[in-house]
Amino acid sequence: LKNNSIASSVDGDRLWQRHLEMATFGPSENGGSTRLALTKEDIDGRLRLAEWAAKRGFKVFLDGIGNMFVRREGTNPTLPPVMTGSHLDTQPQGGRFDGVFGVLAGFEVLEALEDTRTATQHPIEVAVWTNEEGARFWPGCMGSKVFADPNKLQPMHASKDINGISVHSSLAQLFLAFPTTPRRAVGFPVASYVEAHIEQGPILEAEKKIIGIVTGIQGTRRFRVEVEGFQGHAGTVPAELRKDAVRASVNMIAKLQDFAYAADSRVRFTVGRILVEPNAPAVIPGRVTFTIDFRHPELSVLNEVGDQIETICAQNAAGCKFKVNEIARTNPTDFKGLIPDLIEDVSQKLQLSRMRVYSGAGHDAENLAMLCPAGMIFVPCENGISHNEKENVEPDHLKAGARVLADVILALAKLVEPLYAKRD
Amino acid sequence: LKNNSIASSVDGDRLWQRHLEMATFGPSENGGSTRLALTKEDIDGRLRLAEWAAKRGFKVFLDGIGNMFVRREGTNPTLPPVMTGSHLDTQPQGGRFDGVFGVLAGFEVLEALEDTRTATQHPIEVAVWTNEEGARFWPGCMGSKVFADPNKLQPMHASKDINGISVHSSLAQLFLAFPTTPRRAVGFPVASYVEAHIEQGPILEAEKKIIGIVTGIQGTRRFRVEVEGFQGHAGTVPAELRKDAVRASVNMIAKLQDFAYAADSRVRFTVGRILVEPNAPAVIPGRVTFTIDFRHPELSVLNEVGDQIETICAQNAAGCKFKVNEIARTNPTDFKGLIPDLIEDVSQKLQLSRMRVYSGAGHDAENLAMLCPAGMIFVPCENGISHNEKENVEPDHLKAGARVLADVILALAKLVEPLYAKRD
Repeated sequence: LKNNSIASSVDGDRLWQRHLEMATFGPSENGGSTRLALTKEDIDGRLRLAEWAAKRGFKVFLDGIGNMFVRREGTNPTLPPVMTGSHLDTQPQGGRFDGVFGVLAGFEVLEALEDTRTATQHPIEVAVWTNEEGARFWPGCMGSKVFADPNKLQPMHASKDINGISVHSSLAQLFLAFPTTPRRAVGFPVASYVEAHIEQGPILEAEKKIIGIVTGIQGTRRFRVEVEGFQGHAGTVPAELRKDAVRASVNMIAKLQDFAYAADSRVRFTVGRILVEPNAPAVIPGRVTFTIDFRHPELSVLNEVGDQIETICAQNAAGCKFKVNEIARTNPTDFKGLIPDLIEDVSQKLQLSRMRVYSGAGHDAENLAMLCPAGMIFVPCENGISHNEKENVEPDHLKAGARVLADVILALAKLVEPLYAKRD
Repeated sequence: LKNNSIASSVDGDRLWQRHLEMATFGPSENGGSTRLALTKEDIDGRLRLAEWAAKRGFKVFLDGIGNMFVRREGTNPTLPPVMTGSHLDTQPQGGRFDGVFGVLAGFEVLEALEDTRTATQHPIEVAVWTNEEGARFWPGCMGSKVFADPNKLQPMHASKDINGISVHSSLAQLFLAFPTTPRRAVGFPVASYVEAHIEQGPILEAEKKIIGIVTGIQGTRRFRVEVEGFQGHAGTVPAELRKDAVRASVNMIAKLQDFAYAADSRVRFTVGRILVEPNAPAVIPGRVTFTIDFRHPELSVLNEVGDQIETICAQNAAGCKFKVNEIARTNPTDFKGLIPDLIEDVSQKLQLSRMRVYSGAGHDAENLAMLCPAGMIFVPCENGISHNEKENVEPDHLKAGARVLADVILALAKLVEPLYAKRD
């Protein structure tokens, strides 16, 4: 294992401490994190990562959608980088590991390579993708989406948060905080991409496996539905004259949920955000906006169920106007061949229990899979709980995931020689 | 009509101009007003009223819930005041007349008395009741509720707005803006109470009547329902393991609306506010809070339908915990005898078309009716639209309402002699 493994140099304590330190940016009340994309907390977290990078002599770059890249140079700097990474933004009242693990495991790989003075032919880069969660700006996986398709840069810049602040103006805050960091154009050749992540589901834990070799990611369709009624006095307007945007919306949502879940037990259908205007107890609501997050592993179900949303809304509009906007769509992703096989092979050599798993959650890897061989490594999370302050992971599992990542990356970057041999 | 009428001295232009001027505090985008209780806009509006009062030599007082009283002294200052008034706070994106008319019509009566140097035996006071709308703080009619029952002062001080700011700390801002205004204890004897208001319904307009003699106000029960699910990842948690607070809430609200409206065509049932936590598109909501505003003219229906809310929520909770809190309750109010008869009599003498009407909206008069003879004068509003920026009223109708109010108040305050006769 000697010349093609640095797994034994992965420092589990250092990796754990970095997780605790990253969680100091946007700590939430009950031990989780609220570090929404491009907020001060997110920017401060990235600055800390950049400090760590500077200490080890790694270069840092930013692109036009705010993706950040930490680069350890290869012996052949003209080769496209082998890439790993994930995201540092969280959900509101989210967890300390979702996304953070993929970034810090990638950084730990760079440090293990540095500690062991191991040279690689390819440069290796750790990506911090912007706004993966989609909690502040829609859609999620924004940074990797733009990276895979630079034509999306301008439309994504126009996306606004709940307070009307655009991605564009929030990015200005990020760039201000990194005044001397070199900028890159959006999108460039990548040799291969491997992302480590917590499972966010209960299967690995139930099956007592430490490593999940991800076989694919279910597809997603995201909608924003706008319902327009007529604002009025709660005490005076009789039922038959009302255009109550809440009454129409709750009927729409109730019927949509029933319809979607009837299709298939693999359906995931979530109305996660509802905004009521003017949202006053004694006023018949004039306007409601709600979001739909619909996911399924099969393209046909995504199409058939998703295409009925408009019809079901129409059947329950009760005199209100409405508009169904499809905000984002990602077809199901398959991870096959090189990367999953390499994860399997390395896990076996490191004698770590493992199984193939399918991802219910979306990840930046789904966008990178359009550009290069890609794959993901999952580690278990407690009770499958994620997007919740209670999200928790065993430190040993983080270490095991980082060890597998290290040797997979090393294999991909093609070990050539001990880097500082002459200095010894 | 001479000695017992000042109606001809009511200045319709002055009254209209005061409405336009008051609307400059918290103007909303489409020509309405957003002047929520105890905000800077509300305080600035009250300061303007106090300036007008000072110019005419009227005294101004504030009580411990922020109710403001503009007093024109009587020849017998020890008598309890004859009171009129309403409120200056509005709904978000509300209208320019709801509440405002009652205050400015009352003030116009004081000015007409002053202009004609008419003395009254009773002092006359124009009340500006705090937080009638209940849009910022729950419950509405807060100021008059506390005035009628001073035991409610402390609990109402603890009420908080959507941002966690309490009535108590907002009142501190009000008192700061009126540093030299004398304070009164909450609640004191009142001789009688007459409130002018726009109808906020379509009946007067449809029946082509200018003056509504209000016979009563329907009863109200207000609830806040808290639904607690379990926050989770929108892509990973299967339907059978979800505790989705939005899914439970939309089913509750849909079933509650159907049940309530089935009872009776006079039911008014409104869910005006929904708050979702964390309100992120890709997160299964962990918590939803929604309000219910339920009104009916009959106590038995208020009891029977309102008491089923808990049961219907339980039937639709789908694994979520929930709590139904009854925040406020007002039984139906009847206006009978002295005041409505006086309004009828004065309207007839002034040759104004009139009819008896029942109020769907709640008003401060319902609380004053517990203390003294009380009644209300309605004027038509365009298409019955209220709690909406489109709220509109004919200037001539405002004038007509103020003329009736003037002579009703004069009769109640018992004309005794020309006040400044000797100065002439």
